[in-house]
Amino acid sequence: MNEYKALDRKILISILDELQYRYNEFKSRQLKLDMSRGKPCPEQLDLSMDILKKTAYLSADGTDCRNYGLPDGLPEAKKLFSELLDVKEEEIIINGNSSLNLMHDLIARALLVGVNGIDRPWRNNGSPAIKFLCPSPGYDRHFAICELFGIDMITIDMNNDGPDMDTIEKFVSSDELIKGIWCVPSFSNPDGINYSDETVMRLAGMKTKAADFRIFWDNAYAFHHFTERPSGVMNILNACKKTGYPDRAFIFCSTSKMTFAGAGVSMVASSESNIKYLKKMIIIQTIGPDKLNQLRHVSFFKNVEGIHAHMAKHASILKPKFDKVISILEKELGGKGLASWIKPEGGYFISLNVMDNCARKIVDMAREAGVIFTKAGATFPYGRDPRDRNIRIAPTYPPIDELTEAIELLCICVQIACINSIIEG
Amino acid sequence: MNEYKALDRKILISILDELQYRYNEFKSRQLKLDMSRGKPCPEQLDLSMDILKKTAYLSADGTDCRNYGLPDGLPEAKKLFSELLDVKEEEIIINGNSSLNLMHDLIARALLVGVNGIDRPWRNNGSPAIKFLCPSPGYDRHFAICELFGIDMITIDMNNDGPDMDTIEKFVSSDELIKGIWCVPSFSNPDGINYSDETVMRLAGMKTKAADFRIFWDNAYAFHHFTERPSGVMNILNACKKTGYPDRAFIFCSTSKMTFAGAGVSMVASSESNIKYLKKMIIIQTIGPDKLNQLRHVSFFKNVEGIHAHMAKHASILKPKFDKVISILEKELGGKGLASWIKPEGGYFISLNVMDNCARKIVDMAREAGVIFTKAGATFPYGRDPRDRNIRIAPTYPPIDELTEAIELLCICVQIACINSIIEG
Repeated sequence: MNEYKALDRKILISILDELQYRYNEFKSRQLKLDMSRGKPCPEQLDLSMDILKKTAYLSADGTDCRNYGLPDGLPEAKKLFSELLDVKEEEIIINGNSSLNLMHDLIARALLVGVNGIDRPWRNNGSPAIKFLCPSPGYDRHFAICELFGIDMITIDMNNDGPDMDTIEKFVSSDELIKGIWCVPSFSNPDGINYSDETVMRLAGMKTKAADFRIFWDNAYAFHHFTERPSGVMNILNACKKTGYPDRAFIFCSTSKMTFAGAGVSMVASSESNIKYLKKMIIIQTIGPDKLNQLRHVSFFKNVEGIHAHMAKHASILKPKFDKVISILEKELGGKGLASWIKPEGGYFISLNVMDNCARKIVDMAREAGVIFTKAGATFPYGRDPRDRNIRIAPTYPPIDELTEAIELLCICVQIACINSIIEG
Repeated sequence: MNEYKALDRKILISILDELQYRYNEFKSRQLKLDMSRGKPCPEQLDLSMDILKKTAYLSADGTDCRNYGLPDGLPEAKKLFSELLDVKEEEIIINGNSSLNLMHDLIARALLVGVNGIDRPWRNNGSPAIKFLCPSPGYDRHFAICELFGIDMITIDMNNDGPDMDTIEKFVSSDELIKGIWCVPSFSNPDGINYSDETVMRLAGMKTKAADFRIFWDNAYAFHHFTERPSGVMNILNACKKTGYPDRAFIFCSTSKMTFAGAGVSMVASSESNIKYLKKMIIIQTIGPDKLNQLRHVSFFKNVEGIHAHMAKHASILKPKFDKVISILEKELGGKGLASWIKPEGGYFISLNVMDNCARKIVDMAREAGVIFTKAGATFPYGRDPRDRNIRIAPTYPPIDELTEAIELLCICVQIACINSIIEG
């Protein structure tokens, strides 16, 4: 098939006519679909129903999980999840139901008090705003935290093996105000790519002007593969130990997309020294996490193999949905030179890059026809996609027939907007 | 009985001999009791076991509580607890398992971003430390939050009807850096007193130099009475509406001491405008609270009457413990002029004031004999009791025979330390 850019204007207009007809037909169906967020579907949530039936309240060592105590989490939860993340039990804290909460609070605390080993708060009296590096497209809620706290965001391009390391190294080596970077290293949101070993080692070992520079390693999708269990992204804590910056990284993870999105268990892993410091802070912040829910989770999963077996069930629900999206994209958009995408082997998203300056129009058109996609630009700092080309597709929640309809509509909108853009030159 | 101060030195020394004998006898028992924290006892936790058996996950309006969403809480939880606190549903947010967490985060946010309606963060570039008023004795964890964030604490004396309002009014009217006050208005920690209507109205209506002055109203023990249901402390939100400062107060409450101390539900109530603002902030902080636990709680309590009936069961467990402590205090210390206490009609603590400069010695002596009380000074800012006289007794957790032993020992220590102090002049 010829790329559409090479086609005659008349042919394009006749294609456009047909697409417009199909668009109107979709509109007449009065759809009401919300594809905007990466939510698990009810069938996925059903996989964990046994958690709700757990009524035990005594931990293995006899702790009454109904009462106060254990601000850093239940020992058996620490054991299970430290094994899962390949860190030591002294390197992990098990928290409430939201790892976003852990990230937000860690940054708030760094701004007010500083990080472990550096007494100076990130936000000093009289100093200008600090900065974060934001590989993009990325997770809008990471960026929202920076925006709330007035942290300047620097957009970093994503390559197929992680963020553009040359640019990152240049920035961090020269600017003391750059205090952190957001990373979604496994099946990244939304591109679905995995950081290569080289990327991980460069992040762990790069010279930073700021001694209190920290990596926020949001490993939300570390175990969310659709295929055979992959070797996984390199362990950032080990990498940081090797390079001599043991306190540089915080790993975040949760069971939100393993068990219940609203009622899972979250965790943060870092150097033993960072975790000790964090525990002191957490004791001041809260009476401790919900240990009953931690106990329910441990008793449900039993061990790391139990988690992997459970994740395979998720995969069998999600893979057909992702396959469906990819097949429609290939059928409708393949070879036309209007859009590109990566076929992810895990995670929660498919990232679609259309022709420049078309994403917003496409998402608007889809909304007019009753299908809500993630706001164009949302995957970039300040909600501004500099090329206005990225659209995040979240295939997990809708049933496959609704998903099919939504993606078919999306492809029509992509073609209409892009052809119009070609015609208008 | 004569007050001990009026007794002859020889008589005092013979009394001391006998006390020392009794103290040594206690020591020989090799006790190991921890009376330091206000934890519910297992019998109290058992009252809520039916919560663990709740397996429903759909809310009344069909929301799947297992999934994301509802960052401000489950509608039926908002309904139940807004009724309980006598506020509107638009004036409440239902959160995770720790109200301390809500307080900590509200202050962190105010320091970094500011409060609703005032764009300026509490902690401005270049400005000196802000200040909080701390009625004392008070709750050590309130003070720990201030200390962490470098907020200067001003100790305010407690009277029988609440904190010393004359002093408070003087401070807040003249110092723009005073941004908040900690209050435990019902069965205060540790005095067990209730704020009078006059105190509440004066707090609500006082002129403050700082427009962003806020009241942190920790109503942890609002429904924790041992007697007939009392009318309760005046509603601070209503009071603030009446005085024309509707945004001044935040009410905090939780079910930590109703259901499970480690796995309850927390809430914050304030003006509709404050709650709207707070919700915007919470959306950035977290993916939302554990709605399954909220659903469990609503389904367990059913309605406000259900909560009150449940609290009556707590009272029947706790009242004998408090009665026992008071009867020992009266028997051992009554009329001797060495110590004073208030007999609380609810709450979790009994506050014992001994002769000046004796509290630390007494707590040390008890520890040497195997009974740990709350650290002397802990009930004051920076852990420093200016008169070194306050000891917090937490009678809820130990079984009544252990409690009896612990308080008998305490009374011996009080007498030894105070008599020594009299003798030394």
